[in-house]
Amino acid sequence: GTEAEGASAAPSAQVIDQAPVEPIVTREGDVVHIELTAQVTNVEIAEDEYYRAWTFNGTVPGPVLRVREGDTIQLTLRNLDPNMPHSMDLHAVQASPSGKFVDIMPDEQGTFTYTADSPGVFMYHCGTKPVLLHIGNGMYGMIIVEPKNGYSTDAGVDREYMLVQSEWYADNSIDAMLHGESKYVVFNGNDYALNEQPLLAKVGDRIRLYVVNAGPNEVSSFHVVGAIFDRVYESGNPANVQRGIQTTLIPAGGGSVVEFTVQEAGDYPIVSHQFDQATKGAVATLRVTED
Amino acid sequence: GTEAEGASAAPSAQVIDQAPVEPIVTREGDVVHIELTAQVTNVEIAEDEYYRAWTFNGTVPGPVLRVREGDTIQLTLRNLDPNMPHSMDLHAVQASPSGKFVDIMPDEQGTFTYTADSPGVFMYHCGTKPVLLHIGNGMYGMIIVEPKNGYSTDAGVDREYMLVQSEWYADNSIDAMLHGESKYVVFNGNDYALNEQPLLAKVGDRIRLYVVNAGPNEVSSFHVVGAIFDRVYESGNPANVQRGIQTTLIPAGGGSVVEFTVQEAGDYPIVSHQFDQATKGAVATLRVTED
Amino acid sequence: GTEAEGASAAPSAQVIDQAPVEPIVTREGDVVHIELTAQVTNVEIAEDEYYRAWTFNGTVPGPVLRVREGDTIQLTLRNLDPNMPHSMDLHAVQASPSGKFVDIMPDEQGTFTYTADSPGVFMYHCGTKPVLLHIGNGMYGMIIVEPKNGYSTDAGVDREYMLVQSEWYADNSIDAMLHGESKYVVFNGNDYALNEQPLLAKVGDRIRLYVVNAGPNEVSSFHVVGAIFDRVYESGNPANVQRGIQTTLIPAGGGSVVEFTVQEAGDYPIVSHQFDQATKGAVATLRVTED
Ligand SMILES: [Cu+2]
Ligand SMILES: [Cu+2]
Ligand SMILES: [Cu+2]
Ligand SMILES: [Cu+2]
Ligand SMILES: [Cu+2]
Ligand SMILES: [Cu+2]
Ligand code: NA
Ligand code: NA
Ligand code: NA
Ligand code: NA
Ligand code: NA
Ligand code: NA
Ligand SMILES: [Zn+2]
Ligand SMILES: [Zn+2]
Ligand SMILES: [Zn+2]
Ligand SMILES: [Zn+2]
Ligand SMILES: [Zn+2]
Ligand SMILES: [Zn+2]
Ligand SMILES: [Zn+2]
Ligand SMILES: [Zn+2]
Ligand SMILES: [Zn+2]
Repeated sequence: GTEAEGASAAPSAQVIDQAPVEPIVTREGDVVHIELTAQVTNVEIAEDEYYRAWTFNGTVPGPVLRVREGDTIQLTLRNLDPNMPHSMDLHAVQASPSGKFVDIMPDEQGTFTYTADSPGVFMYHCGTKPVLLHIGNGMYGMIIVEPKNGYSTDAGVDREYMLVQSEWYADNSIDAMLHGESKYVVFNGNDYALNEQPLLAKVGDRIRLYVVNAGPNEVSSFHVVGAIFDRVYESGNPANVQRGIQTTLIPAGGGSVVEFTVQEAGDYPIVSHQFDQATKGAVATLRVTED
Repeated sequence: GTEAEGASAAPSAQVIDQAPVEPIVTREGDVVHIELTAQVTNVEIAEDEYYRAWTFNGTVPGPVLRVREGDTIQLTLRNLDPNMPHSMDLHAVQASPSGKFVDIMPDEQGTFTYTADSPGVFMYHCGTKPVLLHIGNGMYGMIIVEPKNGYSTDAGVDREYMLVQSEWYADNSIDAMLHGESKYVVFNGNDYALNEQPLLAKVGDRIRLYVVNAGPNEVSSFHVVGAIFDRVYESGNPANVQRGIQTTLIPAGGGSVVEFTVQEAGDYPIVSHQFDQATKGAVATLRVTED
Repeated sequence: GTEAEGASAAPSAQVIDQAPVEPIVTREGDVVHIELTAQVTNVEIAEDEYYRAWTFNGTVPGPVLRVREGDTIQLTLRNLDPNMPHSMDLHAVQASPSGKFVDIMPDEQGTFTYTADSPGVFMYHCGTKPVLLHIGNGMYGMIIVEPKNGYSTDAGVDREYMLVQSEWYADNSIDAMLHGESKYVVFNGNDYALNEQPLLAKVGDRIRLYVVNAGPNEVSSFHVVGAIFDRVYESGNPANVQRGIQTTLIPAGGGSVVEFTVQEAGDYPIVSHQFDQATKGAVATLRVTED
């Protein structure tokens, strides 16, 4: 079957399992220094099922990054993967891909400077070729650029959570990613954690979700059972306001900020309403309790 | 092949074919009492091809429900299916899923009360697990929540029609729904009725379509040949206005209200412009005649 | 394999390879006369790989048409294909499909008159049945209807380019289009030309892309690496404005106008961020150089 592909081609690589490395984020005025790693780490994608992932900092998705509109980002990527180059493509910045999203060789590092001048919620990902394989193997995450003037709804928001939807294919197989069917579709890297440890809220809370769909291939029909989105800010930009939305499409490589209020206690499943995706794991639980 | 799956596993279930039951809808002030059934009924999905559907009230899609913004809905679901629980998830209401979208056991009934405080056009569906199977087998429909202040275009609308897009898979097979290809993609449950008996209009009419995409899996690229949508109200909310749209995406589990004018007599096909879907049945005919 | 299907069924048709014919476009006041051909022409869809395409004027996509809001279009379609009828469905006009998008028989021609009264960027395509096959074989293109009052961003735009995304399936096989996987997903007909000869810009330029997704089947998650769309005009209508968008969904049979600025020299890949599509060819290069 397809599951043995890729791994069998590079047997020495199978033993690599690099421990997660804490990202380093420091601020000096409006300059944010971010230090990330590219590394190979086994991650649990379903109960007792591990994937030899290519990661940022040893988790899938990688760390949530958060800066403010107008910030300068000075990002250092250290490539701990001994076998291949990796890189960083931040959807949050406008920059020359051939100048600043470039490959970092094994055991090397690179530092890049750019400005985050467009607010919203963005995907970041490894942009090394073949990009499909680097995203499919786990190299993606979310970066939030807080709007300088906020969202008109900021004052009412009680809680916020971050969700990255993505697909897993047969282990490390670009052939599976290109021609096969997704094996799992998940929020935040696996199909169980956000159900075993639900997102929490209290009755009456207004909840904001930052959502990115990392793909690599499928769009998302994002929905919260029992809720209607009072606001959808497409790509997280405060200028893009939709009201009263039941389900919102998120492109592969896109994102949205959604807000809604919960008035009754109970469990609210968060799903992709493309129910093949939900059945493959794209379900999280929001647990709402009385004060 | 996949077609025999499911049915063969429960031979006694094959003989169930419950006659459609009229939904009961009564209004007292701003309280709307709705009584629906969950039942197993054979429905024709293509000429001379029947599907042992799981339904609301014996039709696929189920009855169109229509209330006003601010109404209280008191919904009773009677489960006539002797074999399994069913439930009701209304996208039109904000409510605790674990409290109010709960399973009703065979031969039992449940009554739930909620408020329809967000205007638009919404999907409703059975939310019993596995949800993919309950939607894929036919348990969905449309609920319209009329906006308190109407749509800015209300005065000009001459006719309105309701369309629910959905997919049919190999009979009752969750494996086909999960891993297979849709066999039919249809409007209002089958691939022929809206062509043999077209939707009707007169030259000069402004037409409003309420559209829901029930999926369970595929998004829709909704289009009317020969028309341009003067308005698209995403999720049917009057606040979400797009102009001059040729084709509008509808998420699985989403809906839209679209409006357009027809100035010439003739037949206007209504399609999903994902033409594999149209070829599998997602075509209806709008017939426009001189006054 | 699937590649031999269709072609082998009609061996005599294989020898047809009609040389491209220049479209004729002339203007008299606000009447635009357009003369197009339907013809069978071999086109290169990947290096040294040819497809016996059904085309408008011998290229895939067909010629970009450009008119002004309010223009009358008088379009003549000459069908040079000796084997079957073809037709023209312009998404840019509101007209009776059964009256004006009708089949033109082999070696015949037809002239149709309609008004382009809705601004934007639209798909046109052959609407002859089976439509899936006529689109899948190459019969589509872009028509731009320039808004009477322009876009609010017109003054800042330095360059504009036109991109049509579409899929290629196994040669001429409607079975492949209906049940198979896309073989290539491309911009402007093939997977190499827009990389070998990149789109060009200068540092500081504001770039406008007119984009159509012809499908026939797949939606597009349109993205420019290194850029954020300052404006997305859905369906190209100036009234539909989104800001700060990283990736925008384009339905099959839909279009968008996107604008962004490039401040650094380098190569900016233009992709569908559904990376299976990008991997199959949906990549173009925008090359930005210093003044
Ligand atoms: Cu990488
Ligand atoms: Cu990207
Ligand atoms: Cu059910
Ligand atoms: Cu639902
Ligand atoms: Cu044709
Ligand atoms: Cu069309
Ligand atoms: Na699990
Ligand atoms: Na986006
Ligand atoms: Na039929
Ligand atoms: Na919706
Ligand atoms: Na090539
Ligand atoms: Na469109
Ligand atoms: Zn990488
Ligand atoms: Zn393949
Ligand atoms: Zn729901
Ligand atoms: Zn059910
Ligand atoms: Zn499968
Ligand atoms: Zn059309
Ligand atoms: Zn044709
Ligand atoms: Zn098939
Ligand atoms: Zn990007």
